[in-house]
Amino acid sequence: MSLPMLRIGLFGFGTVGQGVWKILQSQSQSLQNRTSREIQIEAIYVRDVGRYKIQYPELPFVNSPDAILNNPDIGVVVEVMGGENPAKELVIQSLRKGKRVVTANKELLGKHKSELFHEASLHHSDIYFEAAVGGGIPIIRSFKVGFSANSIQSFFGILNGTTNYILTKMSETEGQSLASVLSEAQSLGFAEADPTMDISGADVAYKLTILAAVAFKIDVGISDIHFEGIESIDSDDIAYARQFGYEIKLLAMGKQLDANSFVLKVHPTMVPIHHPLASVRDEFNAVFLTGDSVGEAMLYGKGAGSLPTASAVISDLIDIAFEGQGPGSARNLETNYRKVAVEKIEDQETRFYLRLNIQDIFGVLEKIAAVFGTNHISLANLIQKERDESTAQLVIVTHKVPEKNMQNAIVQLKQLVEVLSVQSVIRVGLD
Amino acid sequence: MSLPMLRIGLFGFGTVGQGVWKILQSQSQSLQNRTSREIQIEAIYVRDVGRYKIQYPELPFVNSPDAILNNPDIGVVVEVMGGENPAKELVIQSLRKGKRVVTANKELLGKHKSELFHEASLHHSDIYFEAAVGGGIPIIRSFKVGFSANSIQSFFGILNGTTNYILTKMSETEGQSLASVLSEAQSLGFAEADPTMDISGADVAYKLTILAAVAFKIDVGISDIHFEGIESIDSDDIAYARQFGYEIKLLAMGKQLDANSFVLKVHPTMVPIHHPLASVRDEFNAVFLTGDSVGEAMLYGKGAGSLPTASAVISDLIDIAFEGQGPGSARNLETNYRKVAVEKIEDQETRFYLRLNIQDIFGVLEKIAAVFGTNHISLANLIQKERDESTAQLVIVTHKVPEKNMQNAIVQLKQLVEVLSVQSVIRVGLD
Repeated sequence: MSLPMLRIGLFGFGTVGQGVWKILQSQSQSLQNRTSREIQIEAIYVRDVGRYKIQYPELPFVNSPDAILNNPDIGVVVEVMGGENPAKELVIQSLRKGKRVVTANKELLGKHKSELFHEASLHHSDIYFEAAVGGGIPIIRSFKVGFSANSIQSFFGILNGTTNYILTKMSETEGQSLASVLSEAQSLGFAEADPTMDISGADVAYKLTILAAVAFKIDVGISDIHFEGIESIDSDDIAYARQFGYEIKLLAMGKQLDANSFVLKVHPTMVPIHHPLASVRDEFNAVFLTGDSVGEAMLYGKGAGSLPTASAVISDLIDIAFEGQGPGSARNLETNYRKVAVEKIEDQETRFYLRLNIQDIFGVLEKIAAVFGTNHISLANLIQKERDESTAQLVIVTHKVPEKNMQNAIVQLKQLVEVLSVQSVIRVGLD
Repeated sequence: MSLPMLRIGLFGFGTVGQGVWKILQSQSQSLQNRTSREIQIEAIYVRDVGRYKIQYPELPFVNSPDAILNNPDIGVVVEVMGGENPAKELVIQSLRKGKRVVTANKELLGKHKSELFHEASLHHSDIYFEAAVGGGIPIIRSFKVGFSANSIQSFFGILNGTTNYILTKMSETEGQSLASVLSEAQSLGFAEADPTMDISGADVAYKLTILAAVAFKIDVGISDIHFEGIESIDSDDIAYARQFGYEIKLLAMGKQLDANSFVLKVHPTMVPIHHPLASVRDEFNAVFLTGDSVGEAMLYGKGAGSLPTASAVISDLIDIAFEGQGPGSARNLETNYRKVAVEKIEDQETRFYLRLNIQDIFGVLEKIAAVFGTNHISLANLIQKERDESTAQLVIVTHKVPEKNMQNAIVQLKQLVEVLSVQSVIRVGLD
């Protein structure tokens, strides 16, 4: 008995696209058993067909997107080109033809999800994006189905493998600088030649807008989100963090304050050593969430790489294989996202870690203490350590304090001649 | 515009049933937004309608299962009675009427899943059971969809909250006995009045047969599985475990050796302190798995309780809300489970921890060492500790050794007059 076919078209054949092809080969029988359908790659659009044909002579490469868009047998397209353009146009054209879309593209969704969801809805299609956040971890469908009985109160994510790998190595080999770990990571293939998107936190910020949509049903753009990267994390900060009982992680954070007010931000955070997120090491990702029914839960796994990401793409194909046709059958699509206020970073309260280089002279501590006093900042820990004959390092952990007070204090500290530099400012804790 | 209804019948209204009702109330609007359907409880079967009517006068209690079975408007039944009977008959009758079934009943599935899946298939229905394993953690659907592109190589689960709570408390308060922690747990509601199912490992063994089905597509019964409980774990063992760098956890283990051979077993295990499972504390559950594409992944959350379990039941209702009708639409049902050989425990190899009470006299260690030598068991660690004037405690950790060699050695050790007792035998490590 021949099974009904699910014919797919691939846009792109890079590392993820090749992973999709490999898994569809190796798992062909088990996927047929699972879905009662035969999944077949009908066409693969790449720019340079010639180059690919040499390596994969048996694969159906095409040199024009139209060969996929205009093929009515292709019901599903998989967009694994990455980047904003031409991916956006190809996805929109596919949706307009009623094709289901699977995409692994966090930048595309981070920037244009509202428009894409609207197009999908208009044309009774659907768009799936499990692979866009957390690689092989089934985080999107867990929010959309597994935890869908819950009001999500908060989530905290380690969503970038490159920066988590770098922070882990810095923590394991105390004293190694970010620059030296990064160059090691690049030579091992754990970091891109141009790592700006990762290091700056922008990659995580895109992913946060996607998680905010599925967890809170809200529509926020990257410009609504305060994000910072790990550029200024120093090996000294890692060492002090451990001394105080923390690991430094680059966290994406989402919290519901009330029906219309949310905290959404990305920055390095000192995570208490016993929190499950503190033990997420190397290139692994994780999302720790709290729902009103399920309580605390965490999902953990590989956030990138050819096969983990392709594994997520194929999980979307399995959902599509079970989808019916016509209005109401789109199980992934949601369009009732609300525009809401994101609380300004200045209005938030948190604990802070600061590391200052100061002149080691009489009266300096008094002047610094006065700045904190003026700004109603109370100190929890303080360590002063001699650097050389005339300078010292001063490390401070505060109690909870409004961000704007701390920002004022930092401006004032920088004006003191005795403060040579404010080396690091890192937020502490998950509350 | 009124939405199409999804009318459900409840069998049972205990702690999970009440949780389902509460969440359907509180999340009514968001579930409608998510599914474009209105989910309504049409009838609730309980034995003693009178008693419930007083507390919940507005709810549609019925005193006969037929009021649900014979109501053609009810398309979905939720079985939350627990236990084998009459749950089994009610589920079969429901499937025969073509109703979708959602069940939280690990004993029912552990014993009868093949028969139930067959009935569902015969009558073009489907049976969902996210709540039967791991409470609120979306572990079943992760195996069925999220990780479905993978050959699962192994999984290790902490699947019983009561025993994990007890082991955690014993570890945190070194020296407290199992009996005393258990009685505390009972008074706090973390353990049943009769905790036999939990303590003996039987509860975990039922759950393991269910995970084996969804992860490996194999049909094994509880009688195929070697299972042990935590009855003989002593506070001394917990203390030594920590000293050697381990936490003791009651683990369900599944490993694929080759296409037709599997390891499936439940027993207390010394888990290396840095493994993610070692930090799963209190009543939390977790499943750590390795897939050929996704690599290592872990899901973590609350494994029991009214709302976490109800949250899982409702996630199944969401899937059902999106299901089409007729043959081929059943997205959860799989019937191609193979009967396979489960490797006998005697044929497995592992490391062992042993704790002996011995006479503290000249030559005893030589005799004990001879027993290990005869059985080709090589020792990794050994601690002898004086107990009183004439006896001592001897703690041993071995290298990897076949189970049957260790079983021989234990028989021979017990025959030595110098060995007063073999207090504990605990397997070490996850390999």
